[in-house]
Amino acid sequence: MRASRFFISTLKEAPSDAEIVSHKLMMRAGMIKRLGSGIYTYMPMGLKVIRKVEAIVREEMNRAGAIELLMPLVQPAELWQETGRWDKMGPELMRVKDRHGREFAIQPTSEEVITDVVRGEIKSYRQLPLNFYHIQTKFRDERRPRFGLMRGREFTMKDAYSFDRDLEGMQKSYQVMFDAYTKIFTRFGLKFRAVAADNGAIGGTGSHEFHVIASTGEDALVYCPTSDYAANMEAAEAVASGTRAAPSAELVKTATPKAAKCEDVAKLLGIDLSKTVKTIALTVETETDGKLDKQYFMLLLRGDHELNEIKAAKVPGLQGAYRFSTEAEIAEVYGCKPGYLGPIGTKAPVTVVADRTVANMADFVTGANEEDFHFTGANWGRDVAEPHVTADLRNVVEGDPSPDGKGVLAIERGIEVGHVFQLGTAYSAAMNATYLDENGKPAPLQMGCYGIGVTRILGAAIEQNFDDKGIIWPTSIAPFELVLCPMGYDRSELVKEETEKLYAAALAAGIDVIVDDRGLRPGAMFADWELIGVPHRVVIGDRGLKDGNLEYQGRRDTEATNVPVADIVAFIKARVQQ
Amino acid sequence: MRASRFFISTLKEAPSDAEIVSHKLMMRAGMIKRLGSGIYTYMPMGLKVIRKVEAIVREEMNRAGAIELLMPLVQPAELWQETGRWDKMGPELMRVKDRHGREFAIQPTSEEVITDVVRGEIKSYRQLPLNFYHIQTKFRDERRPRFGLMRGREFTMKDAYSFDRDLEGMQKSYQVMFDAYTKIFTRFGLKFRAVAADNGAIGGTGSHEFHVIASTGEDALVYCPTSDYAANMEAAEAVASGTRAAPSAELVKTATPKAAKCEDVAKLLGIDLSKTVKTIALTVETETDGKLDKQYFMLLLRGDHELNEIKAAKVPGLQGAYRFSTEAEIAEVYGCKPGYLGPIGTKAPVTVVADRTVANMADFVTGANEEDFHFTGANWGRDVAEPHVTADLRNVVEGDPSPDGKGVLAIERGIEVGHVFQLGTAYSAAMNATYLDENGKPAPLQMGCYGIGVTRILGAAIEQNFDDKGIIWPTSIAPFELVLCPMGYDRSELVKEETEKLYAAALAAGIDVIVDDRGLRPGAMFADWELIGVPHRVVIGDRGLKDGNLEYQGRRDTEATNVPVADIVAFIKARVQQ
Repeated sequence: MRASRFFISTLKEAPSDAEIVSHKLMMRAGMIKRLGSGIYTYMPMGLKVIRKVEAIVREEMNRAGAIELLMPLVQPAELWQETGRWDKMGPELMRVKDRHGREFAIQPTSEEVITDVVRGEIKSYRQLPLNFYHIQTKFRDERRPRFGLMRGREFTMKDAYSFDRDLEGMQKSYQVMFDAYTKIFTRFGLKFRAVAADNGAIGGTGSHEFHVIASTGEDALVYCPTSDYAANMEAAEAVASGTRAAPSAELVKTATPKAAKCEDVAKLLGIDLSKTVKTIALTVETETDGKLDKQYFMLLLRGDHELNEIKAAKVPGLQGAYRFSTEAEIAEVYGCKPGYLGPIGTKAPVTVVADRTVANMADFVTGANEEDFHFTGANWGRDVAEPHVTADLRNVVEGDPSPDGKGVLAIERGIEVGHVFQLGTAYSAAMNATYLDENGKPAPLQMGCYGIGVTRILGAAIEQNFDDKGIIWPTSIAPFELVLCPMGYDRSELVKEETEKLYAAALAAGIDVIVDDRGLRPGAMFADWELIGVPHRVVIGDRGLKDGNLEYQGRRDTEATNVPVADIVAFIKARVQQ
Repeated sequence: MRASRFFISTLKEAPSDAEIVSHKLMMRAGMIKRLGSGIYTYMPMGLKVIRKVEAIVREEMNRAGAIELLMPLVQPAELWQETGRWDKMGPELMRVKDRHGREFAIQPTSEEVITDVVRGEIKSYRQLPLNFYHIQTKFRDERRPRFGLMRGREFTMKDAYSFDRDLEGMQKSYQVMFDAYTKIFTRFGLKFRAVAADNGAIGGTGSHEFHVIASTGEDALVYCPTSDYAANMEAAEAVASGTRAAPSAELVKTATPKAAKCEDVAKLLGIDLSKTVKTIALTVETETDGKLDKQYFMLLLRGDHELNEIKAAKVPGLQGAYRFSTEAEIAEVYGCKPGYLGPIGTKAPVTVVADRTVANMADFVTGANEEDFHFTGANWGRDVAEPHVTADLRNVVEGDPSPDGKGVLAIERGIEVGHVFQLGTAYSAAMNATYLDENGKPAPLQMGCYGIGVTRILGAAIEQNFDDKGIIWPTSIAPFELVLCPMGYDRSELVKEETEKLYAAALAAGIDVIVDDRGLRPGAMFADWELIGVPHRVVIGDRGLKDGNLEYQGRRDTEATNVPVADIVAFIKARVQQ
């Protein structure tokens, strides 16, 4: 490509609405252009990256045996009603009526359509397994679109759907996709991590998220550096360390005036926050024969720990719908204001659910169910009955034991760019998608679904790879692998000639090269390409050519390297392939 | 590709809603699957063809200097309001509201968005010319979607937009696109014709349509076999042949009871239809200062000719809005019922507009403005004043003189698959898209737009290329170039071995090959591939191999050719490249 025939449009300053570095740099590098809130035109330089991402995804999906098709954007409401998602999904599902008043969804994902296609096509177990995918525009009407391509409304996603006879087959298909994703993200040249994830509302039997590691990431990833344990914060299991010590202190009701928070109590008493226990009061309402019944639960967490609501929602009795108790309910049940609650001496019966770590504590500090008072030296079994339920209720913290017993946990930040999901029969059962087994009996198809946020990859790659000059693309997804920067293309016959020779040689060697023939001054030219983030640069100048040299500089290099003209293509080829 | 790893799903019968051959064959070949009215999933076999079409379009667009980007599907109403199209376009523009009640269009085309992009990016004449394109999903909420991909609601289009400083530059850009389209359709391997088209409501200064020739085409294409004149029926100029003869008959008022049509009059009088003149009564209403004024026009056409409404709309006085006169108006103006009107002796003043051919007629038959009576032997100048206006009002017919004077016109049917259009400043003026000229003065950008109906190409190619067995794809856009059909892949070790060798050799030679390893019986296997329309087939069988031969058969061949194993790859390569 010649820069004069391409469209390059860089900015010195990012627009004020760009909050994060990837958004700012993509705008400045002229890769995207805002059309509306969360809606962007992919400019030529940005589209080149998208196409490279798509090509890698496509190659590895095909290699893994998945078959590409293309499902429509505009999908009839009837299919979404079959699975109940038409009602279940909120306003993020963009709905539209046609001229006859029929309702449609603009696809945010295509489980319904692929299940409809497959139930029409698959008759027999002999046709299985199958895995279909497409790379298609999606729309999600986010409440607050932001961060450029990171949380847009219109975006490109690769979504794949596997169909199997049984659980075992589905898990095999899942593993094939897991492995393909590992290859894909490796080929992107990004540092990434696959973590176990919670299955959420869809149910199913397993799921992993693929995250690009970046300090600016929205998600906390938990992993064990000395084993292969990895999970996202929602799913990472918190194991209590050690065992419960014997009581060594007396139970004392201690005045803690105006200390309604564990932090304040610890400060007041001069103890470590990890000696305190905080109480979270919950209410579960049930209706039987029109009669409303309320049950009260108390969650106990160590003062320095955080509640994990996903885990709490799995506690027996709390499944389904729980809510935080109101002040009135707290007054009725605990006889006290919030901030001073505890398991010792409640007014009404409460189910005590202790986090594993709390259940292991001795001589702890907890609310006395009386304003401005806490108990110190509290002990399970002695001062209060053992917890009714002991469960994993909290987020893990750095240094927690790894659940596999092979070390301690570390935490890093990530950006979710892929998700593999064992759906089971959630969709096939709802939509009556069956196949005939060996005995001619219909059985529901076992499904998996597998997504990659194609356009989001761009944002994530930049959040991981940038400096104060601009973007630093991994070679495999860079808009161009190599830029040729001639010094005086229009002035020096020798420079022009050598540039054209190198351009032709690089093309012939299969290098995706752009030659900057715009006639810019060196400073402006270099600044453009450093901002855009092309990973390899060769400067062709009279001075170097005098000694038979060209100047090579990698985007991360601090200095240029002189390379003899005769060696340059092989030299670059080796670096591009690294 | 191995058939066992691909998804092949053929049908013996087409669904009953498939009306035309391309729709039937695409459904039967498993290329598309209906999701809703005018909305299709492109199944793997269909998507392969779409990708080949897209690749050819992309290559030639790039070669012609156009730059690819990708504009969003969901576009803010505000932009469409700037050009007035938000109101001008009817219900075919799919409109949608987001969660905040803001209005958007799902793009049927992207003039507004590209003009918005360009007005933000282009400052100076130095940045021009520019041509941007994208290949993107479109939605048009057709009143009556039908014919499969031919008139769908969701479809894929390549749309390009050129921006120039002046008319001359724009016409140059237009010619570059015209030439690129010629290359594209040539590479598709389709018989096509570019015809001049009417510019329609958008205005501008020139336009051509590209049609795939097919007897089932909706459009009539006019061309001169002995010159390069070609236009669509709307735009083709009708030239009157010969000159007006001197009067030779007397004007006679002749009884023509119940003969209200020219055909009936000619039959009754025993004359040729071409001796009669038909009258079309029109009314134009104008409002001045709240006062309604009516003007009456009479269009005269030879009895065997058809009115061309596009041409009529260009007659001075008829521009803007005309309508057919009501019976009451006809009674008032002509004193008569419709069917007996003519230019001689009207009751009220009427502007007489004669088609060029009518103006050249002598001794013609026309209505007498009296029920059941016509005049015979009518002549201009003698019996009635010369026409107020003489104009081209009619559709051309086969045998008409070519407007370039280089022969006579022929007519064939076509399917419109491309359109190039000189837009001029229609959009740039409405959206204030300007550049600064050499003198630093703002001037509106001169635009052109260029569309190719990517998915429609599939339907058109099939309408042109099929037989009773199925589709016959041109090699360049076939889903696969070559199919290998082993006879007894699972039975004969030799067949399997030779098949695998040939498969590897074909892949190495860059041939897009599929090997049918499904183990089907020959009849079913051949029927599948003939239906799907793969253009080249090689049968590998024990019988042939005994003599060192394989059987090659082109999709249009009536018989197979024996080719020595050693020559087969070169043999196929030559045919694929033909």
